[in-house]
Parts: sequence; structure tokens; C-alpha cells
Amino acid sequence: MVEKLNLGTIGTSWITEQFIHAADETQRYQLVSVYSRSLEKAKKMSGVGQEVSLYDDLQMFLAHEQLDVVYIASPNSVHFAQARQALLAGKHIIVEKPAFSNVEELNEILNLAKKQNKYFFEATRTLHEDGFNQVKKHLPTQLVGANLTFMKYSSKYDELKNGGSPNIFSSQYSGGALMDLGIYLLYAAIGWFGRPTDVDYIARKLPTGVDGIGTILLRYPTFDVTMQVGKVANSFLPSEIYGEEKTIIINAINSISSIKEYSQATGKTETIACKNNENPMVEEAENFAEVLTNKKNEVIQKDYQEWLKLAKEVHETIAKLKIRANIQFEADQKRK
Amino acid sequence: MVEKLNLGTIGTSWITEQFIHAADETQRYQLVSVYSRSLEKAKKMSGVGQEVSLYDDLQMFLAHEQLDVVYIASPNSVHFAQARQALLAGKHIIVEKPAFSNVEELNEILNLAKKQNKYFFEATRTLHEDGFNQVKKHLPTQLVGANLTFMKYSSKYDELKNGGSPNIFSSQYSGGALMDLGIYLLYAAIGWFGRPTDVDYIARKLPTGVDGIGTILLRYPTFDVTMQVGKVANSFLPSEIYGEEKTIIINAINSISSIKEYSQATGKTETIACKNNENPMVEEAENFAEVLTNKKNEVIQKDYQEWLKLAKEVHETIAKLKIRANIQFEADQKRK
Repeated sequence: MVEKLNLGTIGTSWITEQFIHAADETQRYQLVSVYSRSLEKAKKMSGVGQEVSLYDDLQMFLAHEQLDVVYIASPNSVHFAQARQALLAGKHIIVEKPAFSNVEELNEILNLAKKQNKYFFEATRTLHEDGFNQVKKHLPTQLVGANLTFMKYSSKYDELKNGGSPNIFSSQYSGGALMDLGIYLLYAAIGWFGRPTDVDYIARKLPTGVDGIGTILLRYPTFDVTMQVGKVANSFLPSEIYGEEKTIIINAINSISSIKEYSQATGKTETIACKNNENPMVEEAENFAEVLTNKKNEVIQKDYQEWLKLAKEVHETIAKLKIRANIQFEADQKRK
Repeated sequence: MVEKLNLGTIGTSWITEQFIHAADETQRYQLVSVYSRSLEKAKKMSGVGQEVSLYDDLQMFLAHEQLDVVYIASPNSVHFAQARQALLAGKHIIVEKPAFSNVEELNEILNLAKKQNKYFFEATRTLHEDGFNQVKKHLPTQLVGANLTFMKYSSKYDELKNGGSPNIFSSQYSGGALMDLGIYLLYAAIGWFGRPTDVDYIARKLPTGVDGIGTILLRYPTFDVTMQVGKVANSFLPSEIYGEEKTIIINAINSISSIKEYSQATGKTETIACKNNENPMVEEAENFAEVLTNKKNEVIQKDYQEWLKLAKEVHETIAKLKIRANIQFEADQKRK
């Protein structure tokens, strides 16, 4: 029998539950402990069996000896302190995207992970899904542009308009459209096209100082990528990648379930097959387990290095976009 | 019997034929003369009957006494000289969009038309179609943005790549994506949302100096409009207009045949009925005839003034976009 990775989780929202189910589906993890500020909430997590320890004290949660890897899905601005503490306690970490509020935090975690000889994963599930890689395989030979969109009205916006202060729209919790949805667009663009040479972000900011809707421009030497992001309106636009010889049509950047390829030569549109997992976090859970259990496999470890490089490029790009749109989080102030 | 407007045409491409058929369908025009540099080509125009005079000399064509109104669909850069000559000969003019290479030419024509007591129409057919007006009627009460696209691979691009110099991609003939397709996007945006306060155009230029593909940004006090235009790749994206309470989805800006309205409150998408003419130039031909035959009708004449205002705003916006993307036509050089 293959030994399982002992998993602990931080955060008790739906996304943590989904990761627990995904980890379970891979059969490569064993959930051993759950942390929440409230034991009551921790207990209510689905998939939490008798043999799982519940904690409302982070220090004690991290002191759990069997614990190998911690999945962190607290509000964005809290990731850093918890990730740091987990690494110091000798645990590997999987951090929900966007992992950190700024590049400085990311670099500190990368350095600490290296020092502690532990792994850090940004939980960018799309990157590990088949659709993402199918698009990459089918890119036009000569790109002339791309138009990617991810824009979804958030019910939390009603809360904001009614005088509330939901985390997702607060600068205290490093919220806003760019961080919450733009991250998918940036991973797609940078994952597919590489690091842009110049960027711009034309954003409409909310009274809380974070962005509600905007247009992201990524410039490359011979083409540009235009991206629309927003949490104050709904878009139903598919995304497209342009070559002179073909156009790739993607149903949704955050959840690729249909890819089509239009050929200029034949005038025909064909479907590119792509596998879809019912739980979209299964592939990332599987891939992270591969890395953690094959430390001497060069191919697998090279993949890991690629993910880190991409995480860095995405965080650096976000930093530039924030400057362009004059967005600052409280976490950024602390870094000054 | 209502007296018909005597129509003459300049240009012998498909668009002129389509306008002749449209004019005929309204039963308000009588085609009396056709000008082409080649009599052979003029003769081949469909719809040209025995009673139509053919000319290969512009001066003689314009000297035709019965001629009331001239439709001009020559290459963009030639419009100005022909429009001027027609006005001086005492004819009304309908000029294919984009009417002129720059604002200076437009202003000169507007002044001359006034002086000559003649009418100038820019043949922006979309503006006169039902779909355009249905969208305007159904705009969100509070706009938060829009994403409009019109991008179509041109077979002339193959010609260009093979060493040819098609008019549509030449600066001599005031070509490029902005002029050829962007004009539809700009009429839509400015017609629906008004004059922008600031603009940008991130364009990829071809070796001929004109634009092949690009992203147009129109900024308004409380929202932004992002537009994608191009002639070197194909897009199948619909266009969208965003409010917090609803999203309007338009199948194609150059030819609106389907409009849908998604409501945030109900989560439902409904179809907005819009009439479609088989020949999309019928409505404009009809509307121009209305103006020309109802010179004392204030409501109709006010419509005409609105079209002129819009033509001016569109030409002024194009001028700004050209500066942003560093696009210059030979016609612009002459104006310096």
C-alpha cells in the first residue's frame, strides 16, 4: 500500500470542502486535521470523519505531528502569516490563489520554503486541468492576439451596496476583481503566452479602493492580449486566441469544458477534445501529491519549478497592474 | 404619384450594387446615371437599365441635369474630392462610411454643403437599422461597461502578404482595420453612449503603416468601453453592454440580428425583438429620402442634424485614435 499524505486544512468555506473531496478522490491524501477559528464550523465540514482532529488554535493545529501538508483557503490577506507559520512548523503548503497580496510576501515564502526544505504550491486548479493544456498544445503558430474574459456579478456586491464590507471587496483582505477573478485570466495568459513585456489595467474602482471591473492589457513583442474582468456585472463572452491561420474559442477561462478551433483555410470549426473532472480540483491535488511523493523524479520536479516560475510571473504582473490602476492593499502598506 | 429622387452612383463594387437595389426597394429613387472610370464596368452593374446614362468622365456625370443625389462608394481617400465636386455641381451627396480620411475634410464638406444648400449623408447603414435603435432603447439604466468586437480576416490580407497592395490595407487609400471595421464599433459606441472623454488605441500595424488589429478603449466619466477590431484574424465573439442590473448581448455590431437581455434579478435571458431587412441598406436609403423630401419637417430635419453631429464625433474620435496608434494617411499629409 502506498503511504498517504496527511492533510490538514485552514478555512471552512465551500472551496475547502471541495479540496477535501478532491484530495479524497485521488486516494493519495488522508485528512487528519481541520483548523477554523470556530470548532463548530470545523465540525460541520463535510468529509470530516471521526479520525480527524479539530482545532481552533493554529499553533496547536500545526503542532500535529502526523501532518504533512496544509491547504490554506482563508481570506487572501491572511494567507501569508499562516503559510509562514506552517512552513516554520515544518509542513508543506498548498495556498489558494491568489496566494499572496504582493510579490514581497511570495518571495519571502519561497525563500522560507527553500530554507525549510518544504514545498509551496499555489492552488491554481485551472493550470492542472486538461483543457488548459489542450489550449496550450493547439495555440496558433503565429499569435496575433487574444481576447479573454471572466466577469461575474458577485452577490457580495449587493452586501457592499447595502453598507456591508465583504472580504472580497475590501482592501484589508486584498480583494477586488483582479485578485478574485483576474488571477484566472493571468494564469491563462502567462501560462499560454509567457511573460508580457508591458501591461496596463484600466479599472473602475469601488469606494473601498479595490477594483470592481476593468480591462487588462498584456503586451508582447508581436501581439497584445486584451482581458475583461469584473465582479459588478455579468459577461457571457467566450474567450478567443487569434492566429492568422486559426482562431481558438474557449467557453470559459475559469472552467474550460469546450474548446473549438476555427481554420481560416477550410472555414470549418472543429472541437478539440478535453477531459472534464466533476470536481475541478482533483487534477491539482493529484499533481501536488506527485511532486510530494517523487522528490527524486527530475521530470516531476521540473514541473514543480515551472509552477513556481509561473506563480512568480503572475504575482509580478499583478503588482504592475495594481500600480497602473492605483490599487493598494493594507498588506502592501505593511511592506513599505 | 410622388416624385422620385434622381440617383447617380460613383463606384462599381458590390456595395454600390447593394445600394442601388436598396434605393429601388424604397421606391423613392430613380437611378439615372452611373459613373465609373471604365464604361465597361459601369455597364455591368446589375440594376442598370436602358434609361440609365453611363459615364467615365466625372465632370460630365455631375453635369447631368436631372441628377439630385450622388451616392459615393469609391476608395476612402477619393471620397473627399468627389464629394466636393458633387456639391459644387449642386448635388446632394451620400458618402460611404468612413466618409473622409480626417476631420478637416469632413468640416470642409459640411461647410460647403451648407453654402450650397445641399445635404450630406454618411452612409452608416447600421445606425438606421432597427437593431441599433432597439439596443439604444434597452440600455442599462446605469452603465458599468461594454465589450464590443468586430474582427474579420480579409482575403485582401493574403494579397498583401503575397506582395500586392490592396486599397483596404494602404495608407494611400486611407485603409486599415480602424477605418474599415472600427467605424462600425465607433458608430455603435458613440451612438449608444455618447462622446467619450478620453480614448486609446493599442494597435498592431502592418508594414504598410495602417493597422491590422487592435484594442480601442473609450473612457466615459463612470464606465469604459473596450473594443476589439481586426482584419488579420477572425473573431466570433458577440458584443456585450454591462449594467449592474442587466447585460445586453448583441450577436454582431455590423449586422445586429439578435439581441438578448440577461436580468441579474431573475437570472433569465430574454430576446429583444428586432426587425431585419434582407438588404441592410434599405433603412438608410429610406431615411435619407425622408430628409430630402421633407425639408420643412422639423422632426425629420432634427434627425438629420443628429446624424451630422454623430458623424462629426465619430470622425473626431478616429482622429484621436489615429494619433494614439501613430497612423497617418497620405490624405492627412496634404492637410498639413
